[in-house]
Amino acid sequence: MSWLNFFRAQKREEAQQPPGTAAAAKDRLQVIISHERVSRGRDDFLPKLQQELVQVVARYVAIDPGKVQVNLERGGDFSTLAIDIELPGPKAQAH
Amino acid sequence: MSWLNFFRAQKREEAQQPPGTAAAAKDRLQVIISHERVSRGRDDFLPKLQQELVQVVARYVAIDPGKVQVNLERGGDFSTLAIDIELPGPKAQAH
Repeated sequence: MSWLNFFRAQKREEAQQPPGTAAAAKDRLQVIISHERVSRGRDDFLPKLQQELVQVVARYVAIDPGKVQVNLERGGDFSTLAIDIELPGPKAQAH
Repeated sequence: MSWLNFFRAQKREEAQQPPGTAAAAKDRLQVIISHERVSRGRDDFLPKLQQELVQVVARYVAIDPGKVQVNLERGGDFSTLAIDIELPGPKAQAH
């Protein structure tokens, strides 16, 4: 599967929302992690991973903590972590 | 969108492949990053991010470098990075 096509389709879908609800186009970073657990006894480390991942990204681009949305979903077989970061304009590089 | 449902559907699709081609069920970590660039002049830092992300994950679970697949796709408006890591059995914790 082409993730490039997937995210472009997602953006087109978002753009078709009624005027005023669709988010204005902004630079954006989405980090999605899926942990598939077949064997029992494997601990779910996604919540711990979340903090470090945002720190790693912050080394490359300035991040406004208020513009970071995190969504953690847990099931017996899967856990998923989605981090959605709205990025500032291009001049704001990581310091 | 529920990423949990998305990855479960993905797994069901993979499971329907002809016998012998579908990967045996294994613990697995998928890291997908999408960088949407509206403004020009924003450099594409996903290739640099890739190395550090695998290092962060390796602090939580033992990773066999031979079991890490990376797929980087680049377009003018989007870049996507997909890292697919087959995890060893639960006893192999990060050292």
